[in-house]
Amino acid sequence: MSLLEDLQWRYATKKMNGTKVSQEKLDYILEAARMAPSSSGLQQYKVIVISDKALLEKIQGIAYNQSQIMDCSHLLVWVAWDGYSDERISKVFNYMMDERGLPRDTMDSYKNVILNLYGTKGADWQAHHAAKQSYISFAMAMAAAAEQRVDATPMEGFTPEKLDELLNLNGSGYKSTVILPLGYRETENDWLVNMKKVRTPREEFITEMTIADAADVETGGGFDLNTTIKK
Amino acid sequence: MSLLEDLQWRYATKKMNGTKVSQEKLDYILEAARMAPSSSGLQQYKVIVISDKALLEKIQGIAYNQSQIMDCSHLLVWVAWDGYSDERISKVFNYMMDERGLPRDTMDSYKNVILNLYGTKGADWQAHHAAKQSYISFAMAMAAAAEQRVDATPMEGFTPEKLDELLNLNGSGYKSTVILPLGYRETENDWLVNMKKVRTPREEFITEMTIADAADVETGGGFDLNTTIKK
Repeated sequence: MSLLEDLQWRYATKKMNGTKVSQEKLDYILEAARMAPSSSGLQQYKVIVISDKALLEKIQGIAYNQSQIMDCSHLLVWVAWDGYSDERISKVFNYMMDERGLPRDTMDSYKNVILNLYGTKGADWQAHHAAKQSYISFAMAMAAAAEQRVDATPMEGFTPEKLDELLNLNGSGYKSTVILPLGYRETENDWLVNMKKVRTPREEFITEMTIADAADVETGGGFDLNTTIKK
Repeated sequence: MSLLEDLQWRYATKKMNGTKVSQEKLDYILEAARMAPSSSGLQQYKVIVISDKALLEKIQGIAYNQSQIMDCSHLLVWVAWDGYSDERISKVFNYMMDERGLPRDTMDSYKNVILNLYGTKGADWQAHHAAKQSYISFAMAMAAAAEQRVDATPMEGFTPEKLDELLNLNGSGYKSTVILPLGYRETENDWLVNMKKVRTPREEFITEMTIADAADVETGGGFDLNTTIKK
């Protein structure tokens, strides 16, 4: 099967049946999450794995009581850095240089560029930036789950501050960003399973642009992404 | 090949050789980007495709002169909503209901929940939230490119405000979030190609948690994500 077939197969499962996902498949999905690329290779995130029902019940209570939290096999929680610092960034770069057998100062100039760049942004921006990287990992986990024919429900429907508190993340330097129950669909009780998958039509989703569309070209300007469909 | 093998194969290509990516492979990669899931299915983003060298040259000038921008076959630019509004969200939901043959008010209560939720957040939060969704699509495109053995370089190293201006995005309701040159590696001139791929060790990346780690359990508390490795 191809990635495109896997993406066609998957959907945001609304009802799971409680069946366990094998350790082998779980490990595969987590490994895809770990292998995901991230900005400057910083991997500003980790994944927490929860299958303990007592803890899941508490999480369900701060996640709009969504049934998948209790009916899933494992809940994955992405947590990302709450901000950037010289110390955090240097720690990753040092590890990377050590692993590659390079002097630790090999990428110092690059490291200073990103430190200066991120340092001038506020704490909110930094947390959002780290969270974005976690979404790449999250996406790779979804693709891996679909490939393994494991169902999953991408979820932002929880209160991050409450989850951070519940999981004792306050003071850890990490904030929860997104969660993913893994399990198996209960087809007969899932209202979404047979619904048509709807996406922005291709001709609206994709726009080709040339120099004629650029702002500073006399013949161009005024390109309107909402109305001008070029392909 | 599996997704995990594809993720092992890929790397952030530093030097491309100018070879064209076939239309078939490009279409496949764009289709994966389009099929990506997004928060509430809103697909708060689009993809701009650029292969025009004159425009790429201008983009290179606001992207730290990175060579891949000129040596790639196509540059993909993700642009995401600059904010949420009743009108924008309703438009997507109406389309979704129409496509599914359902009355347009079928999901009105859900729509109002997210409108209330997003509406109480600031413009910055809204733009970041939409941008996060675009990163899922961006990740699926990277996975698809790797599957097709097309090289790609995930890039945040550009000035978004300048790119928005150059591409005439101001006033369009969209902001650029991330870019991805697609092409083929020039192995002999790429310093990264033979470097070891470094990731957070598995035992640090993954943490298992149970109710004993929860904040409000007497026996638990004080869970430290930085030092406590449970698996």
